[in-house]
Amino acid sequence: MDLRSKRLNKTLDPLAVRFLDSTDEDEDLLREDLVGTAVHAEALADAGVLTPQELDLLRAAVHQAYEDAQRGQFPLKPALEDVHMNVEAWLTQRLGELGKKIHTGRSRNDQVALDLRLAARRHLMTVAHQLLRLCKALRSVADKAPEAVLPGTTHLQPAQPVAFAHWAGMHVERLVRDLERLRDAYARLNVSPLGAAALAGTSHAIDPARTAERLAFDAAFRNSLDAVSDRDFLIEIAYVHAHGAVHLSQLAEDVILWAAPAYGFLELGDAHATGSSIMPQKRNPDVFEVVRAAAATAIGELTTALAISKGLPAAYNRDLQEQKRVLVHAWRRQRKLLAVLPDAVANLTPRPERMEAAAGQGHTDATELADHLVRRGVAFRDAHGMAADAVKAADDAEKTLSELTDDELAAVLGQHAQGVRDVLGPHAAVAAKTSPGGTALERVAEQHERQAEILEDLAAFFESETMRVAAAETRLLQPTQQSKVKPA
Amino acid sequence: MDLRSKRLNKTLDPLAVRFLDSTDEDEDLLREDLVGTAVHAEALADAGVLTPQELDLLRAAVHQAYEDAQRGQFPLKPALEDVHMNVEAWLTQRLGELGKKIHTGRSRNDQVALDLRLAARRHLMTVAHQLLRLCKALRSVADKAPEAVLPGTTHLQPAQPVAFAHWAGMHVERLVRDLERLRDAYARLNVSPLGAAALAGTSHAIDPARTAERLAFDAAFRNSLDAVSDRDFLIEIAYVHAHGAVHLSQLAEDVILWAAPAYGFLELGDAHATGSSIMPQKRNPDVFEVVRAAAATAIGELTTALAISKGLPAAYNRDLQEQKRVLVHAWRRQRKLLAVLPDAVANLTPRPERMEAAAGQGHTDATELADHLVRRGVAFRDAHGMAADAVKAADDAEKTLSELTDDELAAVLGQHAQGVRDVLGPHAAVAAKTSPGGTALERVAEQHERQAEILEDLAAFFESETMRVAAAETRLLQPTQQSKVKPA
Amino acid sequence: MDLRSKRLNKTLDPLAVRFLDSTDEDEDLLREDLVGTAVHAEALADAGVLTPQELDLLRAAVHQAYEDAQRGQFPLKPALEDVHMNVEAWLTQRLGELGKKIHTGRSRNDQVALDLRLAARRHLMTVAHQLLRLCKALRSVADKAPEAVLPGTTHLQPAQPVAFAHWAGMHVERLVRDLERLRDAYARLNVSPLGAAALAGTSHAIDPARTAERLAFDAAFRNSLDAVSDRDFLIEIAYVHAHGAVHLSQLAEDVILWAAPAYGFLELGDAHATGSSIMPQKRNPDVFEVVRAAAATAIGELTTALAISKGLPAAYNRDLQEQKRVLVHAWRRQRKLLAVLPDAVANLTPRPERMEAAAGQGHTDATELADHLVRRGVAFRDAHGMAADAVKAADDAEKTLSELTDDELAAVLGQHAQGVRDVLGPHAAVAAKTSPGGTALERVAEQHERQAEILEDLAAFFESETMRVAAAETRLLQPTQQSKVKPA
Amino acid sequence: MDLRSKRLNKTLDPLAVRFLDSTDEDEDLLREDLVGTAVHAEALADAGVLTPQELDLLRAAVHQAYEDAQRGQFPLKPALEDVHMNVEAWLTQRLGELGKKIHTGRSRNDQVALDLRLAARRHLMTVAHQLLRLCKALRSVADKAPEAVLPGTTHLQPAQPVAFAHWAGMHVERLVRDLERLRDAYARLNVSPLGAAALAGTSHAIDPARTAERLAFDAAFRNSLDAVSDRDFLIEIAYVHAHGAVHLSQLAEDVILWAAPAYGFLELGDAHATGSSIMPQKRNPDVFEVVRAAAATAIGELTTALAISKGLPAAYNRDLQEQKRVLVHAWRRQRKLLAVLPDAVANLTPRPERMEAAAGQGHTDATELADHLVRRGVAFRDAHGMAADAVKAADDAEKTLSELTDDELAAVLGQHAQGVRDVLGPHAAVAAKTSPGGTALERVAEQHERQAEILEDLAAFFESETMRVAAAETRLLQPTQQSKVKPA
Repeated sequence: MDLRSKRLNKTLDPLAVRFLDSTDEDEDLLREDLVGTAVHAEALADAGVLTPQELDLLRAAVHQAYEDAQRGQFPLKPALEDVHMNVEAWLTQRLGELGKKIHTGRSRNDQVALDLRLAARRHLMTVAHQLLRLCKALRSVADKAPEAVLPGTTHLQPAQPVAFAHWAGMHVERLVRDLERLRDAYARLNVSPLGAAALAGTSHAIDPARTAERLAFDAAFRNSLDAVSDRDFLIEIAYVHAHGAVHLSQLAEDVILWAAPAYGFLELGDAHATGSSIMPQKRNPDVFEVVRAAAATAIGELTTALAISKGLPAAYNRDLQEQKRVLVHAWRRQRKLLAVLPDAVANLTPRPERMEAAAGQGHTDATELADHLVRRGVAFRDAHGMAADAVKAADDAEKTLSELTDDELAAVLGQHAQGVRDVLGPHAAVAAKTSPGGTALERVAEQHERQAEILEDLAAFFESETMRVAAAETRLLQPTQQSKVKPA
Repeated sequence: MDLRSKRLNKTLDPLAVRFLDSTDEDEDLLREDLVGTAVHAEALADAGVLTPQELDLLRAAVHQAYEDAQRGQFPLKPALEDVHMNVEAWLTQRLGELGKKIHTGRSRNDQVALDLRLAARRHLMTVAHQLLRLCKALRSVADKAPEAVLPGTTHLQPAQPVAFAHWAGMHVERLVRDLERLRDAYARLNVSPLGAAALAGTSHAIDPARTAERLAFDAAFRNSLDAVSDRDFLIEIAYVHAHGAVHLSQLAEDVILWAAPAYGFLELGDAHATGSSIMPQKRNPDVFEVVRAAAATAIGELTTALAISKGLPAAYNRDLQEQKRVLVHAWRRQRKLLAVLPDAVANLTPRPERMEAAAGQGHTDATELADHLVRRGVAFRDAHGMAADAVKAADDAEKTLSELTDDELAAVLGQHAQGVRDVLGPHAAVAAKTSPGGTALERVAEQHERQAEILEDLAAFFESETMRVAAAETRLLQPTQQSKVKPA
Repeated sequence: MDLRSKRLNKTLDPLAVRFLDSTDEDEDLLREDLVGTAVHAEALADAGVLTPQELDLLRAAVHQAYEDAQRGQFPLKPALEDVHMNVEAWLTQRLGELGKKIHTGRSRNDQVALDLRLAARRHLMTVAHQLLRLCKALRSVADKAPEAVLPGTTHLQPAQPVAFAHWAGMHVERLVRDLERLRDAYARLNVSPLGAAALAGTSHAIDPARTAERLAFDAAFRNSLDAVSDRDFLIEIAYVHAHGAVHLSQLAEDVILWAAPAYGFLELGDAHATGSSIMPQKRNPDVFEVVRAAAATAIGELTTALAISKGLPAAYNRDLQEQKRVLVHAWRRQRKLLAVLPDAVANLTPRPERMEAAAGQGHTDATELADHLVRRGVAFRDAHGMAADAVKAADDAEKTLSELTDDELAAVLGQHAQGVRDVLGPHAAVAAKTSPGGTALERVAEQHERQAEILEDLAAFFESETMRVAAAETRLLQPTQQSKVKPA
Repeated sequence: MDLRSKRLNKTLDPLAVRFLDSTDEDEDLLREDLVGTAVHAEALADAGVLTPQELDLLRAAVHQAYEDAQRGQFPLKPALEDVHMNVEAWLTQRLGELGKKIHTGRSRNDQVALDLRLAARRHLMTVAHQLLRLCKALRSVADKAPEAVLPGTTHLQPAQPVAFAHWAGMHVERLVRDLERLRDAYARLNVSPLGAAALAGTSHAIDPARTAERLAFDAAFRNSLDAVSDRDFLIEIAYVHAHGAVHLSQLAEDVILWAAPAYGFLELGDAHATGSSIMPQKRNPDVFEVVRAAAATAIGELTTALAISKGLPAAYNRDLQEQKRVLVHAWRRQRKLLAVLPDAVANLTPRPERMEAAAGQGHTDATELADHLVRRGVAFRDAHGMAADAVKAADDAEKTLSELTDDELAAVLGQHAQGVRDVLGPHAAVAAKTSPGGTALERVAEQHERQAEILEDLAAFFESETMRVAAAETRLLQPTQQSKVKPA
């Protein structure tokens, strides 16, 4: 079966076939193409293009194809260019004339748009699940050292002591926003394009809203030109991934730094550290380094996705195939990364003693000293100046602020030296930060509780959508009652 | 007043001052810094750090500063590095000791985070308003030629005829999604970071929730480390702009192509066309070309925004200043672009006669012919083949399909030639596409109505938020009752 | 054989193994790793670490491994992580103790740097060869219509007529610069890193300069820290590809536009056009659309390559593996694209009659009219104004400039109308542009000759380097004389 | 003077004027436009379009304009759109009819191409000079601690000790490649486009080669279509900057890490460290953080530059104006960054005692121990295993390798313990790496010498080109002999 136009006299150049072949990435769309074919068959039956018997035969054949695919026995042939032509050819081979009817009232343009939305939906829910696991892993590491205090840094210079659990909470906040962005992207992608046909809609009596409902989409497209050319949902996912990957790279950076002997705040799990081919003493954080690098990959993929669409004329252009290729591979990479990261994080071991030793250095309690002076009535800017003097005095004496003698303190602070010892040292400084959202341990505990609630809500949302979608798609991959009785 | 730490003996290298100076972009944050200072003063009064009288004096001074700024009499001094130090210095100069108190319990870290969120909020609402205007412009162009039909293309090859108004509706759909993304981004950015101080919260009795409410934010931060380092909202806006700019570039491409003599479907308004320094016959679409290019700029800015954050260690790093610089300039550019585009679009003149002449060429009714055959019982794939034969026959005869004689049609289609003339020609083909979302004129009209409702809802949302925010910010820029009576 | 450090108690997490596995892309480095192993064996023999007999055995084993690889019988095992460990394991299995010696004085760090440079060198020469073929294809298309004239455009508006061959020459100029950039990149990459070991050099008596010579490199590294961490050559190739891909996208855009019926200047070869699944009349330029999109892919890959390296601390970091992964796949894509493009271009058919018809429209001879007036003593700005008046008169009369009557011309140009007919019309306008580099046909011919010389020089350079490199590498993949006699 | 085409009835929309206005960035092209105008006047005189007297008047006027510009008295008026129209208007105002002649035989298309090449050439030489200064700064820091030894890291884990001066040499190598890339880019950009006119060349007897020579270009364009649309040189510079900025970000990262108390290898100069608004103890490396971030900015700018050009049809499109805008601002940023960085680097103070203390930790001498075993006849893989055992023994005993007792060493190494003490400890390990390019101090000294030679050659090249170009341009900005005598 040659689906090329009869206007073209020669067969396609073999190098062009190879160049245009999308069967590698289309393997991730095979299930989707079968789902879409089944639902389109129902629409054609509604429209009177197929008889009930023909529908049964088609549904049974789709079921058979899906079972073959499940067993790895539905290889996509590059000569047929893409998954759509492979599925149609398979059906036509088995069903004869009937197979030739299935493309009525649709086009590869709305078909590929549908397949991509179905695949994107499935991918998105997998990723959401993986991110939720990562949040749990972060929380579990925090719980290994609930009272540990480390030097919070700005500009990589010690600033003020913070709770280790507060640090973990910061990373969870970032992931919460990523999950919210996934949820928003989901709402926009969950729209059915089927029925837009090539670009103008169809003259057959097809009802896109009914199709959308059968596929558990929230709605059908409003404009057929838009439906076939819109890849916003791919770009939006590429963005959510790139932004999320940046967050993961920041987590990776903290781990890489803190696993270095100069810090030593964290120890890598043996199952997630690697050795050297030449240096026997190494414990390398390779997993985290590749995670850090993967942010750059995701940024590049987003750049590609946007730049492909830039300046494209209406409506469908084959440029969108390259976009599909890049992004399907990106999804594979993203899922592989998120499969390993939660365990790599959960296997980290905090070293509270190293954290606290470092928190005691670098005068991270100097701000607390200034705040003490403010409470005693000194204007903030003056208090800041006096604290700076105290730091200088401590440096000159090669001491921490708490190691200064009463005389040394009085020399700088005068009468305000009174009571100052209560606020010095990392634990005191942490305990003092009791403003809501601050690092005092009870505030951190509150924050963790609130995060747990939010994550539960998000988990519930993705779980229920997963169920709803699975039910709809599973039905379509099953034969109808009749066809079960007497399969083709 | 030198705000450098006393530990640093030398003044900053003048080249470094120039390199680190952010006063250019900080001009867009001056109003915000004053709002933030006013609200922080209220928080300090709540906490007992300021007396009611001190609060009045501060609020009056902020009011004064704002009035100066309005009159262009509050130039930011580069020597003071940024807007925060400029405002604090201004207050200290006028209020003496009291000015030195304002920085109690806050840090430049939460302060700049606040200013950026306030500015982002304002920017976002302006852009939303501009996009809504652009939607109206597109609709108004469609209304100039409500029945015009042009050759819809895929691969830039004529595919099927579509209504010109359908094309306009496609672009509106894209903008609707952009507006929805803005609304989602708004929800995530509308969170107050004030009270996070340097990174750990504060030991002063400050209530971030109260501050958030006063600023018309939806909530306060949950984690102080996150609050000072989070620039997700900037990156998300950069993404929404980049994605939106890609949509605008696609609109620009259509206009540039269609304003070229080879198409001639649209004519540029004289006020938006440019001539040549050397070629007297030119009517150049410069505005649309720069719009097309601006998508690349926005993609690059997004790349920058993401790549700056990649791999940054916790918590605040000065890298974020470069991010601020790039994005504030990006906002200016984006607003300037969106100021001109709606009028440039509204001034386009459609040329229905050119559209229809082209729609009649290229056999764009061939699919409709195939669908006719399907309705007469031919399987789609066979119908597709017969339609291809008809196209070949027409090409050989150098005719359009409708120009073929009855005999010529019968030679290819046999008995199925009967009734085929009813579906040939661009207007017939458009009229036939009556499936929901299709290009039949009544479907397009439905679609426009639905779009109008959605846009109205979006407009109402942004309008009401704009009012709410304006009320909150305006209150803070006014002096209190007392201070009004006897200003400082 | 487990090469993990003895300090790590557990085996690596299977998901981490999968995540870190680079054997897919390392298939493109297998030949290189064998060449590198052979040359390192020679260096170890020079240093007295291996006996001459051991060297012979190793060289024979390398030869055997290469033959296995050629026959597809050297599959890389993911469990061994990368090509280096696969090769070492293979050798150790066959050579026992001797296999364990080969890693003396080297590290995976300098080894992978070497493999990448060898592979980059080979890739680069293939691409250069493909680009030279593309230049020939462009020339051959120009030669199909040596006198054709089309409307040169600026802003996609007709500006002045130009020779079709001049257009082809423009694209060749771009490719010439791409080839020059490849040559410059080649010079920088052709440096041997072997001998840098982990990062500090080695205490064994190894001579990197001798190794470099044996590998046909131009020089050895100067700084071992740099040698193991430098991936500039990868990034530079990514840039040359991205920039080159942009040029190809511009060529593709011209072809896509000109193959559209609205222009019709070019016809796609049947072997490089595709049909539609639904619209029988289509001849779609899919190959060129994907080429256009591929520029975005290459830009994204470059972004990734740069962003991975951004901010990396000294010296080797595993982030570089992700960079390797992305770029090896990019090379495969790039070679596949350049394999198909020259034929797709060579198969284009110019349509001079369409070009000339279009060149006659749009008043593209108006500048020539203005220049005529200048030659008659009118100041350019005034001449420009008079030409604009003539254009307006022609438009009002719905004529071209040459179709204006003598009276109509005189009404606008007065006495200067004299002789003006000689410069009107597209062929006259082209013939007049006789300045060097201009579009007059004899100038275009000159230009083509000069281009041919330059391309010959470039071809000679790449050809001779290809030979030199092949000789060096082939020698290393052969067994030594002795080992040939009595293989292991 | 209105330069708009007479075909356009309305004036340009004021918002469009503002949107299209390029006078901000064109300030960097004013000198260039004057140089280009002067040289074009000479070409017109050669061609007989201008009389010698007219040439004198024009040259005198150009000189006057340049003097005004030098005194800041040549503000560009946005209403005139760009620098070209501003200069032409200025000349016409002063010279009347003569001013209107200057645009004969050129177009804004070749004019802006020329201006950009002149500006790019000047910018490039400034940057080269700045990079050479940075190389010197790196060398001067190395010279402050010529024998210091620090722990070389891979994966941020201590690997082997290296000389501090070796680290500095690594950064110099990167800069050397950047300088070479600048030199290669220079060769490609140093081509004159003047004479290409709008896109087709001109019918006036203008000789582009003569013009090129007068401007100290290496050659004239070969193809006029290419000459007006080619912005390769801008993109190539954007690439060289992005790649170079990545190198600077890597240097910045090393400095930021090493200035952190956890490392303490480097101390920031007071003139290049900043304090905190709230934390009195801080010494923040803001300059280096912004340098790190600037790599992301440069990557984004490169992305923009490439994506703007992607898919542009032949020949000039206004998209190129946006490209110009972005890149001229990028150049300003780049020069500002490189103005401050050399001093910031030169003011770093190495802390050898901190470096050496760290080098003694982390078993960085373990590879040297393995190499010792190899020299005693142990196969490398076995030696690697024994060294790993020694590391484990040391860890268990909480000692460094050199702190192990003879018995402890013998327990692991058996007879091979003999002589092992000679290779342990960071200084011994560094001294042992005597292979060329290795870290032994005498090898580092060799390397520095070789680098100095290379830098001298590069400096000589840029210096001589700077002189040659300055001579040519200065001549053109001077009045001719006659016009000096009696100025206009």
